[in-house]
Amino acid sequence: MHALTLHEHLIGRQGSRAALNTPALIVDLPALERNIAAMAAFAARTGLRLRPHAKTHKSVEIARRQIAAGAVGVCCAKLGEAEALSEGGIENILITSPVVGPAAVERLAALAARSPGLMAAVDHPNSVDALVRAGAALTLLVDIDPGIHRTGVADADAAVALARRIDAAPNLSYGGVQFYCGAQQHIEVTGARRAALVDRTDYLKAVIARLTEAGLAPALVTGGGSGSHAIDAELGVLNELQVGSYIFMDRQYSDCDLPFETSLMIDARVISANRPTLATVDAGFKAFATEAGPPPVLSGAPAGSVYHFMGDEHGCVVPPRGEAPPRLGEVVTFAAPHCDPTVNLYEAYHVVAGDTLVGIWAIEGRGRSA
Amino acid sequence: MHALTLHEHLIGRQGSRAALNTPALIVDLPALERNIAAMAAFAARTGLRLRPHAKTHKSVEIARRQIAAGAVGVCCAKLGEAEALSEGGIENILITSPVVGPAAVERLAALAARSPGLMAAVDHPNSVDALVRAGAALTLLVDIDPGIHRTGVADADAAVALARRIDAAPNLSYGGVQFYCGAQQHIEVTGARRAALVDRTDYLKAVIARLTEAGLAPALVTGGGSGSHAIDAELGVLNELQVGSYIFMDRQYSDCDLPFETSLMIDARVISANRPTLATVDAGFKAFATEAGPPPVLSGAPAGSVYHFMGDEHGCVVPPRGEAPPRLGEVVTFAAPHCDPTVNLYEAYHVVAGDTLVGIWAIEGRGRSA
Repeated sequence: MHALTLHEHLIGRQGSRAALNTPALIVDLPALERNIAAMAAFAARTGLRLRPHAKTHKSVEIARRQIAAGAVGVCCAKLGEAEALSEGGIENILITSPVVGPAAVERLAALAARSPGLMAAVDHPNSVDALVRAGAALTLLVDIDPGIHRTGVADADAAVALARRIDAAPNLSYGGVQFYCGAQQHIEVTGARRAALVDRTDYLKAVIARLTEAGLAPALVTGGGSGSHAIDAELGVLNELQVGSYIFMDRQYSDCDLPFETSLMIDARVISANRPTLATVDAGFKAFATEAGPPPVLSGAPAGSVYHFMGDEHGCVVPPRGEAPPRLGEVVTFAAPHCDPTVNLYEAYHVVAGDTLVGIWAIEGRGRSA
Repeated sequence: MHALTLHEHLIGRQGSRAALNTPALIVDLPALERNIAAMAAFAARTGLRLRPHAKTHKSVEIARRQIAAGAVGVCCAKLGEAEALSEGGIENILITSPVVGPAAVERLAALAARSPGLMAAVDHPNSVDALVRAGAALTLLVDIDPGIHRTGVADADAAVALARRIDAAPNLSYGGVQFYCGAQQHIEVTGARRAALVDRTDYLKAVIARLTEAGLAPALVTGGGSGSHAIDAELGVLNELQVGSYIFMDRQYSDCDLPFETSLMIDARVISANRPTLATVDAGFKAFATEAGPPPVLSGAPAGSVYHFMGDEHGCVVPPRGEAPPRLGEVVTFAAPHCDPTVNLYEAYHVVAGDTLVGIWAIEGRGRSA
């Protein structure tokens, strides 16, 4: 792998971050470690199980560190991501999206046979039947739609029917429920975020009550995210947290008042500087996820500089009026607009401590959507 | 490579497209071949050199086919992309963006020594000096800013000075100029596109006249794109075309009245169908480039259905009112919103003829921005 070998010789060399070929995905190791420790301490303090969502980082090394700090395992968004992390030795993976289609169901059955503690979320009886036909042996969770209509059963009746179907199926275990309030994570005003989560948690409580009446009380109630973790703990219905973004943070969470640091960055370089009011850097649609707006400029350009996308490979950095743009060859550092799909664009993390490269970590789950 | 092996057993099996794990990047081989042949015939007819831009496809196999059909070589957007294609045996590569930074300049010098016919665009005298210091031997083109202020020299004086610097440098050859009117490619009304290109071409003519007066008449005048190729040929100033998107086409070109077919698609699968008015497919920000809007629905859902992004891994397909959404497990086929950064999300093309998988081609240049 090109990205794993290109900079190997720079590891441990003082000041080597500046010598990286750009664009480069950077992880600040001390900040990452503080984020991992802070969330682990939070989970321990509140008595919640912690199962960080690996869709954020897609990396065996980071999953290992989260588990070493106390996580019970990790979540993966897709089967391919779970296969990649399992191959790297990660156990107790929960696949949080329904796995559908004959080829994928066969792969899931095979993965369950070799991956200790594998669990998967389902939202339709056909998926249970398909797993039975494939001879799969694993624990399934009933995915409950919190109202965004992405995945999940639509109401308590469907939850009870699906839980019963799992419970009755040979080789399958009913493990509980999953409830992910994605739409509520980024509400910037903490009070408004809390009100939205109280409302959704009341709905979840009602579904759990119905399951309990039917003799299907969920052992596991998993969900939550970085934006809601403190409120979820206080509301006391979830018993496991699927937090993901807390390890990196990004533009989407920057106004949400969370106790974590930006540990993920992109270093880019000025490759054209022929205009007095802007400089062009070597990072565009292929260096940053684009759906959450432009990346914030962290350093390397005058305070108040903004970035504009200029195609697949380029963007321009525009300083405030009257200030000079960065010069040809200079490095400009950006935060990610949205961490998960930005990470998906790279083969490897360049791990730094201060201005020194201290490691290169593969992103094994990159591109493993299928 | 996971994506190259997962579906190998399906190659040549009748109807095997439906059995692919999703999301899958699909190339319709007959349509691709017709696009390659049509542009090659256009270039032959108009007497223009054809150097297709490989930033669109990033693939050794497709570059080979373009060259076999008459192209003189290919363009690459970045050094890493050029290294990847060169490793696959592709020669006569033009790197169309300035290569800046000590590590990158060393790599460029090394690539020039092993890659016959390598050329690169430059836009600053410092870059010429850096290549001389690195001992690089290759042909350089002066990149001229057509007015979008992304890369390129700012005026005729700078073009003359830079051409002179290259011409005087040991081991470097001055090959001509590059002029890429990116902003004009997607103007939908052909008349308006033509007027914009006439204006920019007049500017280019003036720069060329100044170079010629200075004894630096450009042998190569390379540029143009899929949206402008016919107008560029008629205006008669460019002598080489850098067309890229014509091989695939995408949403951005769909209203531009060009004689090429959509040959690139994304197959996704319904993985949640618990609502009467929509279905969720397994393709989101990680399956489609997002900066050019949502992907058009080509088939697998009622005519008039639209797609909405729902996160990294999901989107919903909403049929017209009163029509039923596709069912759980069904495949929905989309066009790419923007082909280049969509291709960048995948490891491989699944090449089909009709409904049968006939090949799997690696995307060697994927992610090679640095």
